[in-house]
Amino acid sequence: MTLSHHFSDRAQFLKPNAIRAIGKRAAEPGIIKFTAGNPSPTIFPVETIKAQAACVLDKYGPDALQYGQTEGFRPLRELIASRTLHTNPDDVLIISGSQQGIDLTCKLLLDPGDKVAVAAPTYTGALSTFRLYGAQFLDVACDNDGMLPALQQSPTLIYCIPNFMNPTGVDMSRERRQAVVDLARQYNVPILEDDPYGELRFVGQPQPTLYELAPEQVIYLGSYSKILAPGLRLGWLLAKEELMFPLVNAKQTSDLQSPTFTQMLVYEVSQSGFLAEQIDRLRRYYHQQRNHLLEAVNQHFPKEINYHPPAGGFFLWCELPLEQDATVLIDEALRAGVAYVPGRPFFASDNGHNTLRLSYSSVPLEEMEEGILRLASILRPLSSER
Amino acid sequence: MTLSHHFSDRAQFLKPNAIRAIGKRAAEPGIIKFTAGNPSPTIFPVETIKAQAACVLDKYGPDALQYGQTEGFRPLRELIASRTLHTNPDDVLIISGSQQGIDLTCKLLLDPGDKVAVAAPTYTGALSTFRLYGAQFLDVACDNDGMLPALQQSPTLIYCIPNFMNPTGVDMSRERRQAVVDLARQYNVPILEDDPYGELRFVGQPQPTLYELAPEQVIYLGSYSKILAPGLRLGWLLAKEELMFPLVNAKQTSDLQSPTFTQMLVYEVSQSGFLAEQIDRLRRYYHQQRNHLLEAVNQHFPKEINYHPPAGGFFLWCELPLEQDATVLIDEALRAGVAYVPGRPFFASDNGHNTLRLSYSSVPLEEMEEGILRLASILRPLSSER
Repeated sequence: MTLSHHFSDRAQFLKPNAIRAIGKRAAEPGIIKFTAGNPSPTIFPVETIKAQAACVLDKYGPDALQYGQTEGFRPLRELIASRTLHTNPDDVLIISGSQQGIDLTCKLLLDPGDKVAVAAPTYTGALSTFRLYGAQFLDVACDNDGMLPALQQSPTLIYCIPNFMNPTGVDMSRERRQAVVDLARQYNVPILEDDPYGELRFVGQPQPTLYELAPEQVIYLGSYSKILAPGLRLGWLLAKEELMFPLVNAKQTSDLQSPTFTQMLVYEVSQSGFLAEQIDRLRRYYHQQRNHLLEAVNQHFPKEINYHPPAGGFFLWCELPLEQDATVLIDEALRAGVAYVPGRPFFASDNGHNTLRLSYSSVPLEEMEEGILRLASILRPLSSER
Repeated sequence: MTLSHHFSDRAQFLKPNAIRAIGKRAAEPGIIKFTAGNPSPTIFPVETIKAQAACVLDKYGPDALQYGQTEGFRPLRELIASRTLHTNPDDVLIISGSQQGIDLTCKLLLDPGDKVAVAAPTYTGALSTFRLYGAQFLDVACDNDGMLPALQQSPTLIYCIPNFMNPTGVDMSRERRQAVVDLARQYNVPILEDDPYGELRFVGQPQPTLYELAPEQVIYLGSYSKILAPGLRLGWLLAKEELMFPLVNAKQTSDLQSPTFTQMLVYEVSQSGFLAEQIDRLRRYYHQQRNHLLEAVNQHFPKEINYHPPAGGFFLWCELPLEQDATVLIDEALRAGVAYVPGRPFFASDNGHNTLRLSYSSVPLEEMEEGILRLASILRPLSSER
């Protein structure tokens, strides 16, 4: 006897993530993996976390293990607010990673059939959650300045990753940021700004976030996953009262609150000054990773492949000639001992067959060139054969 | 310019929790609080958690801070499975507290208008989440053996707390458990079994869980909040493959995974044998708390008030004479320096005006009698006046 006739309409969208599926196939030994968006474990601050965990339990005692407010640990909210323009602690909600911020925003805003404007391409994890809430998509084209400020019709929500967009690595220009904010104001729609990579800039000056440009219009998501440790599953959401009040209640029905202990841990790591130093180290580290990848790609990739050097973040996005299909080529790549993420799942619509994402965040430097050589060997003969 | 015209239909249900509202009013100094379902912080194992957190970082190093599988940390899943009848590790999903298990179950099963059968009364946090997914309720009456095994019509889901039900403290009898499971099989509907208190039994023999009686029919939720520390926000969900597969994907869209670090921490605390010892200590502790409360209530409460000694858990449920309204009396109680939770929010329908919940879990022993004296002074004159 099956129970599936009781499943909800949305259950049809409860399917495994496409990137995870590639990750499983790439897990065999000997495969050089440009797949995971994981931060590099080689510079996780294990000893600092260990010392600060002990410090938290000494300092806060049983309070570190008790329930706390849904909104989050107040000193951490104050610290985040003090470092953000136009923000007071009441505008800060501590969340269990930015994926949860996407889910809470959907809970607040989306009814089945509602339109969400998304960059083509964009983060697959966001697309999966939007789909689960019955969203329809308005694809927004992108250029090297980010999402184009143009909509065919009014959406319920605009989803945007201005800093080093996943998957393209594009850094949205100052003018484009203003234009997107102006567009949201014109239609009077909220923007969901997803910003896990903003602190990991290698090139150019920091840009204002969309939240800083239009705090009333934006739900902003920050994350400790890329700047501290994803295994803590913590991030923060910024929003003004009209949006914040129901979002806090959405958080309460979802998981009551994020863990008290790890919130205190992140607070201590931040206020000690360690986090700022760690971010400097990470910036240098990922800059070097990115430079090694670019060097190998510049040297070995066939000239028909287009890519744009990222100014920050974890990813290099590649466009193959139109007659190539990265979803098909992945089998050959795995046989050759290299893995990437085909670009298709990053598109809301059926698109991007000739694109792929390379993550340089956690590939050992000594494997970088060899990995790119293997990949080039797959791409070159095909491009010259035809 | 407001954005609220973009809010979803469900946003109307994003309201603050009624118990939390009482909690805020009761926060003033001098008020003896029978409100919170918090475990007592006086026996949180702060030193053990501190030692094991260090041990986790020594043993697992950077892996403790990295992303992990959505399903959870495999050794913890194995440990949970080894202690549960009819369960293998693939049937175990680690969740961020059992509240998240309720939310994931709703994601999988509920469309707006679907019927959920709930005990009258039951846990408010579950009712809030069911409402958010557009559920209609089928109230199920209860007696001293638990939910009655009778339904007026077929629901999409039966929600049940067999062990020391929140708020009534009732322990469902062995026969009743079988009858509820038989009913679910007859209608072929899934049961959501919420079991945060099952290990905290003072009286009688452990009963089988509904999951153990009918694993194919049940989504079971366990929690570390009451037996270890709610500030870690961890629990576990048991389900067989048909339900587990989409639930794992629901978890992935919600928050990717529960924190790797705290999962490893709970694993180490469990496998060292400490958790089993701690549960013994907690059982004795809460048994003593419950006995002190019962003694005071037996001695000081007017005889018109009905209550049933709980066999485990945190709560004593009281029925006042029908002409009294606990929602009205709370103002007077707070002025007299005592706080309880009025019973009404525990009912899906408008009901229970003459009921209230007393939590004995974290009231200091030396305040217990004084608190009950204050409460009795409010209840007595009213009951004799009329």
